[in-house]
This record gives sequence, structure tokens and C-alpha cells, in this order.
Amino acid sequence: MTQPANILTETLSAVTPVPNERIQKAQAHLDSLTKPQGSLGRLEEIAARLAAMHPAGKPRIHKRGVFLFAADHGVVAEGISAYPQAVTAQMVCNFLNGGAAINVLSRHGGAGVTVIDMGVNHDFASDLALVAKKIANGTGNIRCGPAMTCDQAERALMAGVELAAQAKKDGFDLLGTGDMGIGNTTPSAAILSVLSGRPPAQTTGHGTGIDNAVLQHKIAVIEDALRINQPDPADPVDVLAKVGGFEIAGIAGLCIGAASQNLPVVLDGVISIAGAAIAHRMNPNIGDYLFASHNSIEPGCRVGFDLLSLDPLLDFKMRLGEGTGSVLAMHAIEAAVKIYNEMTTVEQAGVASKSDSFNKTIKAEP
Amino acid sequence: MTQPANILTETLSAVTPVPNERIQKAQAHLDSLTKPQGSLGRLEEIAARLAAMHPAGKPRIHKRGVFLFAADHGVVAEGISAYPQAVTAQMVCNFLNGGAAINVLSRHGGAGVTVIDMGVNHDFASDLALVAKKIANGTGNIRCGPAMTCDQAERALMAGVELAAQAKKDGFDLLGTGDMGIGNTTPSAAILSVLSGRPPAQTTGHGTGIDNAVLQHKIAVIEDALRINQPDPADPVDVLAKVGGFEIAGIAGLCIGAASQNLPVVLDGVISIAGAAIAHRMNPNIGDYLFASHNSIEPGCRVGFDLLSLDPLLDFKMRLGEGTGSVLAMHAIEAAVKIYNEMTTVEQAGVASKSDSFNKTIKAEP
Repeated sequence: MTQPANILTETLSAVTPVPNERIQKAQAHLDSLTKPQGSLGRLEEIAARLAAMHPAGKPRIHKRGVFLFAADHGVVAEGISAYPQAVTAQMVCNFLNGGAAINVLSRHGGAGVTVIDMGVNHDFASDLALVAKKIANGTGNIRCGPAMTCDQAERALMAGVELAAQAKKDGFDLLGTGDMGIGNTTPSAAILSVLSGRPPAQTTGHGTGIDNAVLQHKIAVIEDALRINQPDPADPVDVLAKVGGFEIAGIAGLCIGAASQNLPVVLDGVISIAGAAIAHRMNPNIGDYLFASHNSIEPGCRVGFDLLSLDPLLDFKMRLGEGTGSVLAMHAIEAAVKIYNEMTTVEQAGVASKSDSFNKTIKAEP
Repeated sequence: MTQPANILTETLSAVTPVPNERIQKAQAHLDSLTKPQGSLGRLEEIAARLAAMHPAGKPRIHKRGVFLFAADHGVVAEGISAYPQAVTAQMVCNFLNGGAAINVLSRHGGAGVTVIDMGVNHDFASDLALVAKKIANGTGNIRCGPAMTCDQAERALMAGVELAAQAKKDGFDLLGTGDMGIGNTTPSAAILSVLSGRPPAQTTGHGTGIDNAVLQHKIAVIEDALRINQPDPADPVDVLAKVGGFEIAGIAGLCIGAASQNLPVVLDGVISIAGAAIAHRMNPNIGDYLFASHNSIEPGCRVGFDLLSLDPLLDFKMRLGEGTGSVLAMHAIEAAVKIYNEMTTVEQAGVASKSDSFNKTIKAEP
């Protein structure tokens, strides 16, 4: 089994479960508010988990950020995407210019966008507002051999860990993941197949919009990649190196780093879920810090939710990536925190409870 | 002076369908943006419909507001609710003091909250920030006879129509509905049974949290109410008068008034859906202006969505009412509008399309 680098091992072992007794204590506070118990459904579940992550039991979200990891994939040579590889770099420029969907939705949701070049097949000008973590100009073609070396996989994971550490220092309370990489639903489906034991036919979807004939070809390419590389499901770094991607590794690293510092992470679609599933296989406690934002139409999503024991918040039939699902779900997550912190208790408002008589004083009226 | 019934008839006949050719034109704009076509799923569907509602084809949401209609119900005498009737008035005071869930979520979402006394069984001080539209101090017990007279039903509808007209004057672009009224899932289930032809066992739920024994009793009460009152499903005002509620009528009126002025309305849970279903039975074109915010756990919701041909945006297992679902969904609706208005087109960004070659110039890079 591949032994991860020392800092990575230390970070992984620093991830502790969110204590159940703290979740229960937080739920008791939610039960004291002016609403029937449990009537805010998933908002209460989110609020209780976030409260339990904070040592003082007081959740807060002051600063939100989407971390958008970009990289290219050698497997595009197999014709598995509807778009040419050049679009990865073009879209990175679109992100930096503020015109992409993630920019619009992040401005709307009050979240910052950090774009990270993990391995785009383009040499960007050095003065761009791009975080340079490039491991290589794209991965190898997984149909012919490994995507990257184990050393590259670990460096890509560490890039994510470092970004989470910097995010903590910069005061972020809530991180979102996002991705850009033409062809990256292919390695994501490959990873989810390896980790779940499900065949590629159950994890592979239409990506940016390929037709059924290309989908069948894409499934065959992933089957070939798994047969040729023989990734070991018990060794997540091996899986990442053999059939992963640099942006997927960066997302996995961000999940590890964030969880080690009690920072919650909102996952986007299938690429983020594949990254999170790698992190979760390295230390299952990481799952306690993850929130699934949305159910994309990629079939791998559901497989990943099962692996991570997560239930997505939204189902808008989206399949764009970039972190668009993450940032939309952040609004609901912040809503949950505000419910926890700002609502009046039954005691304060003088509202009758279920068993009270009809003639309780209305304290709240002037 | 024109009789209210006449103004209501005029308002109803002023509701025209949202033209399909305008929706298609809006979709063509969405298809020109830097994303795979259709990849933003329901956000695109929302944006196209909202764009089509505006004569200039340019959707906008500058001002959002939740209209929270409160009233009491004589049927609480049958013991169908987990809470005493006094809670309706107590919660109205909680809303006015800003401590309820709807206040927290509306502040979070940037929406105003207008609380309307449609028929609370309490005489509020006249200096409260409450819109006084009280028809009576609660409805009659529908197990024994009609909830209200037809004249009262029409006046309650007109109250909603007037609020929508005022909202338009006040510059609101997006209205949300909300409700408060102990016992009001009972008339809502009754209305949805009458309009759908489904038995009360299929439209009735646990409301604020009754147990299964009380649920069976609640179903029997609704069955009695339908047998005794014999509401005519072809006559929505008759249904409202016989088994409805004042806040439900207010919501129906708001839907009518808003639709007559091209104003979109976001519906909350089962009480709002029952109101909207009444409005929709009066003129089905009204459905074009409605958005379903969330799928509450009340079974009547699904029945109502079928009647209205609506698909809810969120499914957070909520069952609070007040407009909490409406205001949460407004964030996604506004996100859709911003996507429409703010995203870069493929042409502007110089991003390669599906069929382009790999070596297109990256215009966006400095």
C-alpha cells in the first residue's frame, strides 16, 4: 500500500468525529425555538451538525468561499467529451473575468471564488489571479496507463490541504468545492466505480452532453482503464494516481485539510463527490464535515452519496460543475445557522406549547 | 360603486397566459451563455419563464416580499391540532417582533415580511405593524356548517387582490405567500380533496405534529365537513366559503391579483397550495405565474402540485408554514434571473463550442 507523505498522514489523523452528544445538545436548543419541534426539517439537521463542529457550540458563517480546481485529462484523446480540451483554459479565463455561472452565483450568494490551476494544459500568464498549483499539463490517458504518479497524487492532495489551511487563516467558515476540466466526469466515474465496486455502466453519465453512442464508448474506455490500471480500492492514493485527476486530488485534499480544522465543506457534483470519496476512504471521520449540495443528473452522484452517507440538499437537474451547486446550497446552510442563532425561544416569546391551556398571556404584544 | 364581486371578475379575466414563444426566445438567450445547453437545469426553466413574464424580455428582481396571512379556524374545537388556538395571535406578535423563523429567513434572503390579519381570533392593538383585513374572529366550525359566507369569501379574496395591487405599486417584483393559523392544514386538506376528488385520507397529514390517533380523527372530521357542506368543485368560491379559511382566501386573492399584473408568486406549503389551487380553478392561466417553493411533508402538497402542474424546487422536509419555504426558494429564483442577466455569452468569452477545433483563440486572457 502507498504510504502517504508525513504531513498528509498527520493531517489525516487530526480529523476527529463530530461528537454526537454535541449534536444532541444543539438539537435541544433548536427544540426550544418558536416552531413545532423538527418542523424546519433539514435546516435543523444542518444547524445541529454545524453547531457541534464549533467547540463553543455556536455556529457561525461569516466568510464563504468556493475553491474551483481546474485541470486537464489525457483521456480526452479517446473522444469521451462533447467539448475540446482547450475549453478548460478558456473557462479558467472566463472565471477570472467574472462572466461564468460560478461568478454570477457566488456574487449572488456572497461567496468568494478562488481558482486553482492544478494541471491545466495551458501556460497561463503569471499575473493572473490564479492560484498556481500545477502538477503537470494534464494527466496521462488512463486508457493506456496511470493518470499520474503516486508522488504527483500526493502533491496534488497536499495542494488541497494547504489551501484549506490558508482558508482557515483567512477566516473562512464555510468552504465549497468546484471543478473545471474537460473530460473529468470520466475519471470521476472510474474512481466511484473502484470505491463502490459498481460497474462503470452504473457510475457513468452524459457529462456536458454526449449522446448515447458516445456514452457507451465512454463506459468502455472506463472499463479498459480499470482493467489496465487495476487500482486498489483499499488504497485511495493508488486509485487517485491510476484513474484520477489533479483537480479531483485537490478537492480530496481540501476535504482532508478542512475536516482537520473543523471547517465544513459543501460538495458540488460528481467530480467533487469523487474527490470527497477518496478523502473519506483515507479517514471516514471526514464525512462528518461534508455537506452534499445537489443531486446532479450524473449517475455517479448517487453512488457517491451512498459511499459518503450524504443526502443532497438540492435537486435542480444541474450538471455544470464549477461549484455552482455548492454555492447555491450555501444559502440554505447559512439559513440554518441563522435559525439557530437568531430565532426567539418559546420562553422568550411567551408562545403556548402543545400542552398549554388556551389562555396563556401574550407577552410579545406591546 | 362597483361590487367586490365585479372587481374580482375583472381581475380574473385580466390574467393572460405567459406566451410560449417568449419562453422559447428566453431559452435561446440561455443557450448562448458559457455553459453546456440546459446544464443549469431548473434555474434555466425559471429564468425563461420569468423573462417571458416581462414585456421587454428582461427579468428583474429588485424587491422581494413575503405576505403572511393569519387567521383562526372554528374547526379547532374538534381537537384536530397539536396547539391551542391562542398560538395564532401569539405567533403574529412573534412575527411583528422579528423573532420567528420567517423573520430570520426573510432577513437572510433580503425579503420584506408583511403580516396580514385576515381573521385572527384576537383583537390586536391598532398601532401594530399589522395589515388589518380582518373578516371575522375566525371561521365557523366546518364540521357543523360552512366556514364563512360567500360574501365573506369574496371579501377575503379581494383583500389578497388589493395587497397584490399595492405590492405592484410599491415596486415588488417577486411575492411569496405564507400563512399562520392553528388548525389550517384541516381546511387546506378539505379544499385539496374537493378540487382533486381524492379522499381526505390522501390529503391529510400530521400538521404541526399530531399523533396517528389524532390524524385518524382529523381525517374523519374532514370527511364529515365535506358530507355536511357538499362543496361544489366547479365553484371555487363555494369551496372556499364552505371548507376554507380567511388566510387561504387571502392567499388565493394574492395569486389572482399578482398574476393579473404579471407578478410572479412563490408558494409556500400546503396552505398556500390550497389557496393557489382555488385561484387556479377560477382561471387556470394563473398557474403560469406560480412557483412551488418546497415539498412539505404534508401529503396534500403533492395533490396540489398535480392540480397546479407545478414541481417544487426544494425538499427540506419542512412543515412550518409562515412562508419559510417561499423565502428560501426566492434565493434560487433570483439566482436564475442573475444567470440570465449577468453571464457572459460564448461569443463574448471566446469559448469553443462543442464542434469547434481545439485551437480557438483564448480571447479572455490578457
